[in-house]
Amino acid sequence: MSSATNSLSQPPLKVAVVGAGTVGGGVLQLLRQNSERITAQCGRQIQVCAIAVRNIDNARSRLSAEDAALLTDWQTAAAHPQADVVVEMMGGETDAKECIFLALANGKAVVTANKALLATHGDAIFAAAHQAQKPVAFEAAVAGCIPIIKTIREALAGDDIYEAAGIINGTCNHIISTMSQNGLTFEAALAEAQALGYAEADPTLDIDGVDAAHKIALIARLAFNARPTLADFPVVGLRDFDLRDIHYAGQFGFCIKLLAQARRDKNGVAMSVQPTLIAKTHPLAAVHGAMNAILLRAVFSGETMYYGAGAGGHPTAVAIVADLIDIARQNGALTMQNSGDSPTLLPAADFRAAHFLRLRTIDRPGALAEITGELAKQDISIEAIHQNESAPGQEVDIIFILHEITRGRIEAAVSQIEKQTSIFGKIVVMPIQRFCSPGEKS
Amino acid sequence: MSSATNSLSQPPLKVAVVGAGTVGGGVLQLLRQNSERITAQCGRQIQVCAIAVRNIDNARSRLSAEDAALLTDWQTAAAHPQADVVVEMMGGETDAKECIFLALANGKAVVTANKALLATHGDAIFAAAHQAQKPVAFEAAVAGCIPIIKTIREALAGDDIYEAAGIINGTCNHIISTMSQNGLTFEAALAEAQALGYAEADPTLDIDGVDAAHKIALIARLAFNARPTLADFPVVGLRDFDLRDIHYAGQFGFCIKLLAQARRDKNGVAMSVQPTLIAKTHPLAAVHGAMNAILLRAVFSGETMYYGAGAGGHPTAVAIVADLIDIARQNGALTMQNSGDSPTLLPAADFRAAHFLRLRTIDRPGALAEITGELAKQDISIEAIHQNESAPGQEVDIIFILHEITRGRIEAAVSQIEKQTSIFGKIVVMPIQRFCSPGEKS
Repeated sequence: MSSATNSLSQPPLKVAVVGAGTVGGGVLQLLRQNSERITAQCGRQIQVCAIAVRNIDNARSRLSAEDAALLTDWQTAAAHPQADVVVEMMGGETDAKECIFLALANGKAVVTANKALLATHGDAIFAAAHQAQKPVAFEAAVAGCIPIIKTIREALAGDDIYEAAGIINGTCNHIISTMSQNGLTFEAALAEAQALGYAEADPTLDIDGVDAAHKIALIARLAFNARPTLADFPVVGLRDFDLRDIHYAGQFGFCIKLLAQARRDKNGVAMSVQPTLIAKTHPLAAVHGAMNAILLRAVFSGETMYYGAGAGGHPTAVAIVADLIDIARQNGALTMQNSGDSPTLLPAADFRAAHFLRLRTIDRPGALAEITGELAKQDISIEAIHQNESAPGQEVDIIFILHEITRGRIEAAVSQIEKQTSIFGKIVVMPIQRFCSPGEKS
Repeated sequence: MSSATNSLSQPPLKVAVVGAGTVGGGVLQLLRQNSERITAQCGRQIQVCAIAVRNIDNARSRLSAEDAALLTDWQTAAAHPQADVVVEMMGGETDAKECIFLALANGKAVVTANKALLATHGDAIFAAAHQAQKPVAFEAAVAGCIPIIKTIREALAGDDIYEAAGIINGTCNHIISTMSQNGLTFEAALAEAQALGYAEADPTLDIDGVDAAHKIALIARLAFNARPTLADFPVVGLRDFDLRDIHYAGQFGFCIKLLAQARRDKNGVAMSVQPTLIAKTHPLAAVHGAMNAILLRAVFSGETMYYGAGAGGHPTAVAIVADLIDIARQNGALTMQNSGDSPTLLPAADFRAAHFLRLRTIDRPGALAEITGELAKQDISIEAIHQNESAPGQEVDIIFILHEITRGRIEAAVSQIEKQTSIFGKIVVMPIQRFCSPGEKS
């Protein structure tokens, strides 16, 4: 909008694309469909010079409009003499990692959406990028088109971020939304999500929280310079998630979301992925279906939130093209340093939060006293209790809302309570996140 | 996080600050408090070389920690020989405009939060920036620390944005929130907002929608290359806003927000600022108190939303420092061109939406037939009607939810209905925004 009508004084940015599936196809389509706009935005063209695909016969007709070399091996694409940038969209870990190393070794910038790879091999990849003095951009690796990487790296670069909390797995959010809205069990909601294409045939990585854990690990790396592996923090998915708890949480004004969190304080960084209660009035509670959102809390900016489609070929393509545009514009933020020591990762037992606790007991004199006695021993204080009407001798659910306390103390109390003869089945424990907005004047 | 441990090979970025009130003070505090972090992020220091204030005696003690020249005139600061950047935070229009021109003429980059100035004199200011080949950065001018300018300019730069809708005046949102939550009238809620510091003693610019109009005009300029002035589109504030309508809208599942909108289609750009109904389940409905949020809709990314504190010294300082960091990193996006023709601004009568209509009539045979007859003459079809129980001859409110139609047709019908003898007082008309999320898999 302001200055510099540079009439394409700069040469085109040439791009080798590795993988032309859903996301790769979206990137090619977006670059073609909006090429005029993109050229105007960058002051230079972004040209695809090579496309590597697994099955060239299948690809030939689909990519007939592309004015680029069609290759069958990623090695040739990653070292393509014309390419300034290699976009790695092959997925998986082994070949993808080699592809990125080969591209960097050949002096190419890299763009990737491969969250699992970066979460697992980030140290080696970013060291190689540092060595090559080339960026490895990865906006598309976390939450599709939501510009969370750019926001942390640039918009809030001067601020001191101390917390990130995200609904960053669309499959899980779709399942929870369906359970809430239609009263389905987890199994039925998963089957529906699979039928609608919101869950894979093998949904393990999504519903066990691993995909969300990869993404929050990347956010913690960028925001806090942390170096977590998945073994370092608790990751609880939806397999044991019970429709009843949506109902009970609702009675206290909460909804439940699979929330990925990373928090930094003076002691270190605490991380977790688990079903979490959130006030129904908070914007995170309004993230429905497969949509994603990430909330950041920082010292000067307070609470900010970023919402959008967390996956899909088209939204993810927007993030990859944004990285290409940043490279074309030579945005210095892409090669920013993040030196300094990594913070300590705090043990899961130190994670502090208010908690929801649901247990099934028998309606008899003294039952509640035994439970609350164990809570008292761990210095856990009770904010609210709910028990439906029942008759003596009948089984009944009791819900406790507990004041803020460490996970370790809750677990100590729960392990004692579970031994009591009047307790049936497993005790459900979930943290409660009470975000508070600064509410400053505008 | 990746490469380039440039051990401060670049010289510091030197900044002259004009105005050290709430926002200016926040900028100085943030630069000082986080200087180490900011230097690491930029690979160079950001140093304040001069501060111009109106009252130097008042400022001397407050700014005693600053290692910068304290000046009483903005002219010296804007032309300061050491300065690379001038941050204009004096407010107002005349001097602020001259300050920016003087800075550009002296080869300085400019950062400003002055939305009224940019909305009114944007053409001249951006032409001067173009002439000087220097950026005028203005992230802080729209919605405080929410990175909406960066998102449009960079994260969604490759996509085709066709709609922006924002809750971008915290005073109005605070007033509506208080009315909704506590059942206060507009006057009582305004008085409370003033007492709490969320509204000025003279709240005109906020409650008449002018401040929101300035901000949406800037968004439309950036997203669509539009050049609206405030005379070009309808701007309706809260002066006539009635608590009853919050209640009635709620019965149909809607809340009401002061929504600023800009939409582009093949015919041109339609803009408006007015109280608007939004589904209670949409994330925009969860924007409470003085918080702000902007929703964007684009072809590839679908619906995205950005939420945070829209004002206040600290959040606004984060946006100004983000612009300084972008300048320090030489982010090419700051001087991006936006050439090409400006789109036509569509007349207010062409604005299409579903509508809420509330009128007060008398319960007598034929009253409803007369009203619906006028709607039918304008081809307006009715989605839902609500009327409380009443007795013959009694006054009663009737609410219509109307299917999508142009504002022009609604107004034509309303002007006829208001002439009817059984209609009492003014008829209330508000658009309904039914956003729909793409709901793609993640």
